[in-house]
Amino acid sequence: MKQKLIIVKIGGNVIDNPVKLLEFLKEFATIQAPKILIHGGGKIATSLGTKMEIPQQMIGGRRITNAETLELVTMVYGGLINKNIVANLVALGNNAIGLSGADGDSILSGKRNPIPIDFGFVGDVKVVHTQNIQKLLNAGFVPVFCAITHDGNGQLLNTNADTLTTQIAIAFEHSYDCELYYCFEKKGLLDDVKDEDSVIPNLNFQKYQDLKKEKKIFNGMIPKLDNAFLAVKHGVKKVKILNADDLLDTVAQKASYGTTITQ
Amino acid sequence: MKQKLIIVKIGGNVIDNPVKLLEFLKEFATIQAPKILIHGGGKIATSLGTKMEIPQQMIGGRRITNAETLELVTMVYGGLINKNIVANLVALGNNAIGLSGADGDSILSGKRNPIPIDFGFVGDVKVVHTQNIQKLLNAGFVPVFCAITHDGNGQLLNTNADTLTTQIAIAFEHSYDCELYYCFEKKGLLDDVKDEDSVIPNLNFQKYQDLKKEKKIFNGMIPKLDNAFLAVKHGVKKVKILNADDLLDTVAQKASYGTTITQ
Repeated sequence: MKQKLIIVKIGGNVIDNPVKLLEFLKEFATIQAPKILIHGGGKIATSLGTKMEIPQQMIGGRRITNAETLELVTMVYGGLINKNIVANLVALGNNAIGLSGADGDSILSGKRNPIPIDFGFVGDVKVVHTQNIQKLLNAGFVPVFCAITHDGNGQLLNTNADTLTTQIAIAFEHSYDCELYYCFEKKGLLDDVKDEDSVIPNLNFQKYQDLKKEKKIFNGMIPKLDNAFLAVKHGVKKVKILNADDLLDTVAQKASYGTTITQ
Repeated sequence: MKQKLIIVKIGGNVIDNPVKLLEFLKEFATIQAPKILIHGGGKIATSLGTKMEIPQQMIGGRRITNAETLELVTMVYGGLINKNIVANLVALGNNAIGLSGADGDSILSGKRNPIPIDFGFVGDVKVVHTQNIQKLLNAGFVPVFCAITHDGNGQLLNTNADTLTTQIAIAFEHSYDCELYYCFEKKGLLDDVKDEDSVIPNLNFQKYQDLKKEKKIFNGMIPKLDNAFLAVKHGVKKVKILNADDLLDTVAQKASYGTTITQ
């Protein structure tokens, strides 16, 4: 049997709420297994961008990353958010180490084709170089990734954090039994978006297609779920979408929370 | 005989000049020994702070770090500058990994006493935890530090980059023969500040005191030199202040550049 590797994405509004974030980190810190944390960017980059008068452009919920915006997200994701999470995890007794995909050449991406839409300095993950991340895990570090990657030629690239998380899990599946948790502020995938308690406990690919047709799943949830199903398809054993508050009990299998994604 | 450890600080105007910085990184990348790079902040934080309307206050050449300024330097030093240096070094074939003092709990500092001057979120280095940095060196990584540290309770602190460099060298002196290079845009310590070629090749502590009395050394050079002499006093074998362009030839002992600091 392979060893467990717990891979956790923290995103959504939790990043923007220092109290919620710290509560989450306290839960994450107590997980006693090799683990990797990936964090999203929250809304701080957008509000800072406005302050700095960097024009923000979104298409289909995705940010257009011009040179100035790349600087902004590198600062906010790679600096402000990442280092604060690391400092808190270290204070909580974890040997956390903050990383971008450039660090240790861990995640190589390619600049997205500008046709049909030029997203600018946006990278799609090409390879997760597990060797260096593995060295860090072996040495007892807890890698904490922001979703900035690089192209191998010195260019940083803005990358979707869910995608990064998924690709890390897929890359490590050959050497670990990966458990993948996408944590956010909702209790899971909701059957009725207005009812916080209408969590769908299990979602398979067929049901996902049906729900999309019924327009019960839309917007930002679609790329998140596409990522989740990609992980399942590539053999990741356990894939869950859940509330950040429920991480610890779910990992410890004390209770079943959130939505479990299956084939 | 202990193994060599090359510790390089890059600061001054080199950080603000992308062409100069890349030239320097090319030189640094070819050094074939365990090595650590520490970078300063340059003037980007100040210009961004103005753009973001964060009031900047300096006393005696040192920045007052209020909460907003701490966020700013964490973004600029820990994010923008650090990740760009790392991406470039990786492109140049170095297994670079970007760190703050919070990462791997590597550098613990204490918030400076607010009396007589309240510098705000400024940290003075208490301990360099060499164990985790050593693990990274053992695994073949090239640590690249920004000068942000932490207090062990989740609080990041702004720290002087020369001081950080010095403390890293002192901490590693028991396990390595450390060579310490403070690189900047000048050719070394100048006898006549207006004459770029008036480099003082060797400076001992007595001569340093004399030059201070003669007012030939002033402002920012004093804390830099105080740091350099502190390193020498604590047994660091080779301490030099030199032009970033001359690093490689100096490390390779092909020529003697810059100012050598001795007891």
